[in-house]
Amino acid sequence: MGGDHGPSVTVPAALAFLKADATANVILVGRPDAVQAQFEAARGGFGERLRFQPASEVVGMDDPPAIAMRNKKDSSMRVAIDLVKAGTASAAISAGNTGALMAISRFVLKTLPGIDRPAIATVLPTLKGRVYVLDLGANVDCSPEHLLQFGIMGSMLVSTVEHLDNPSVGLLNIGEEDIKGNEVVKEAGELLKSSGLNFFGNVEGNDIYMGTTDVVVCDGFVGNVALKTSEGLAQMLATFLREEFSRSVLTRMMALVALPALKRFKRRVDHRRYNGAALLGLKGVVIKSHGSADAYAFEQALRRAAEAAGNRLIERITDRMAVREMVA
Amino acid sequence: MGGDHGPSVTVPAALAFLKADATANVILVGRPDAVQAQFEAARGGFGERLRFQPASEVVGMDDPPAIAMRNKKDSSMRVAIDLVKAGTASAAISAGNTGALMAISRFVLKTLPGIDRPAIATVLPTLKGRVYVLDLGANVDCSPEHLLQFGIMGSMLVSTVEHLDNPSVGLLNIGEEDIKGNEVVKEAGELLKSSGLNFFGNVEGNDIYMGTTDVVVCDGFVGNVALKTSEGLAQMLATFLREEFSRSVLTRMMALVALPALKRFKRRVDHRRYNGAALLGLKGVVIKSHGSADAYAFEQALRRAAEAAGNRLIERITDRMAVREMVA
Repeated sequence: MGGDHGPSVTVPAALAFLKADATANVILVGRPDAVQAQFEAARGGFGERLRFQPASEVVGMDDPPAIAMRNKKDSSMRVAIDLVKAGTASAAISAGNTGALMAISRFVLKTLPGIDRPAIATVLPTLKGRVYVLDLGANVDCSPEHLLQFGIMGSMLVSTVEHLDNPSVGLLNIGEEDIKGNEVVKEAGELLKSSGLNFFGNVEGNDIYMGTTDVVVCDGFVGNVALKTSEGLAQMLATFLREEFSRSVLTRMMALVALPALKRFKRRVDHRRYNGAALLGLKGVVIKSHGSADAYAFEQALRRAAEAAGNRLIERITDRMAVREMVA
Repeated sequence: MGGDHGPSVTVPAALAFLKADATANVILVGRPDAVQAQFEAARGGFGERLRFQPASEVVGMDDPPAIAMRNKKDSSMRVAIDLVKAGTASAAISAGNTGALMAISRFVLKTLPGIDRPAIATVLPTLKGRVYVLDLGANVDCSPEHLLQFGIMGSMLVSTVEHLDNPSVGLLNIGEEDIKGNEVVKEAGELLKSSGLNFFGNVEGNDIYMGTTDVVVCDGFVGNVALKTSEGLAQMLATFLREEFSRSVLTRMMALVALPALKRFKRRVDHRRYNGAALLGLKGVVIKSHGSADAYAFEQALRRAAEAAGNRLIERITDRMAVREMVA
């Protein structure tokens, strides 16, 4: 139901996903008046692989998470997460209110043993491939122990969805001399060093896109600023590039000639390909799509959810945490 | 002397600066063996406007700031800042070790009345023009009062060098629901609200490049990450764009055709134009050039220093802080 576009995006995305993955099943959750007509029109093609689960309420993008959790017990978000809890669904995917999704997920699914706080992780393109960054805003004030747990969860996420054996983990810090990071980051570095993870050491902001490590760990405030700053910069650069190519008839002709190269460039950095942030540390797979996602972007979030659930993300994190408990 | 390229960049930049600004004077500070030959070759053209001040030592890029400050009392950095302290120079400009520059500046010049900690501010391009962001790494752990002082200094910097009457100030925060920033940021927002500054309110990372406000205030850890992340992203995008246009003979021809537009785009976002970060809150103008600056970039740092000193930046911050003390 959620996101800026609602079922007009999520339903076509679900159909495309079902077409592309013959082993997949989708349960559409939402208000019957909003979703059921589209569901009825599409169901013929997929039979039992496409189901509909009604929910009478919708969490608004501006609803305070605590209110959404307490007062909207039949929201599409809540019903979807209940399906994960019940084992009926392997993952819940939403383009709605992030805070509410996290609050409801945490309340319904609970956190995994040894995990104090769930975190939000996203994938980004780099010069060398891809990087997973967490936390992106779920946790503003983090202890060294929290950052260590983010490192473990990030590492397990990458090994699950990228099929990498021992992903490298970097700790986001700053390089100014004399003041190499604050106390929390320093202590987190010590914990990560002795964690058994493939800990690279400190990285700086530019290392995210250089692809220095497979995982970058930071607190949610810093991660959120890094991500949003990137979005702003990318948007500004795209605007400037467009403006320069539409300045005159001549530059518009240049753009036409250069179109194949420009298109390849655009496809390569298309943020829609990277849609689908994982809410990690919960007893279930929950994926958050960008609110402004279109059908293509939302389909990527569905694929990411299938990949995580199909490759036993939750079990991997659980096992890794259990090893840690035994060692400690 | 400093930076990655030393006098081979700083001397030509100084000459270009003198040529462009007939009212300007430059004192080259450095080891005679490294600088004097270039100085002698160039002096004829500028007479007394170009002087040379010998210094026997150089602060290395990896020297710990405390060591550089205590043990290298005749470093080019120290001598240049001493010239500001003595009133012989209106500003000091260095491409050297940031931590050492801050430590020596603070030790020699002292902070202005009412300023607890100096901050580093840089200018960045935005969709609407320019934005000044501070702090960029001088202060890792900030109190609400520090963030307020950054707001005051940033506002005065923009009014000085951009000739804006009442610059708008934004407080960098994150927008995730339920967890709108940490306690420090919340309290800083309250202080900024009642500061008499043109306080816009909270902004998010993307607002930096959207040009939502003229000034963006944050702690040094977050600011450093935002800046370095931007550098990494810009570098990755530039690499991808270059790769797509050099993929084949055909795409290279496309690039040739599109060159004028691509060049205009490149000029528009050329980070060299934005070189020259201000060390704010000191009793003197100190400007930090990027270590990798070329002559064009370093010349921009010189211009920025001249603009700040010529338009009485230090007096403006002092006056604004005095008003604050009276009100408090």
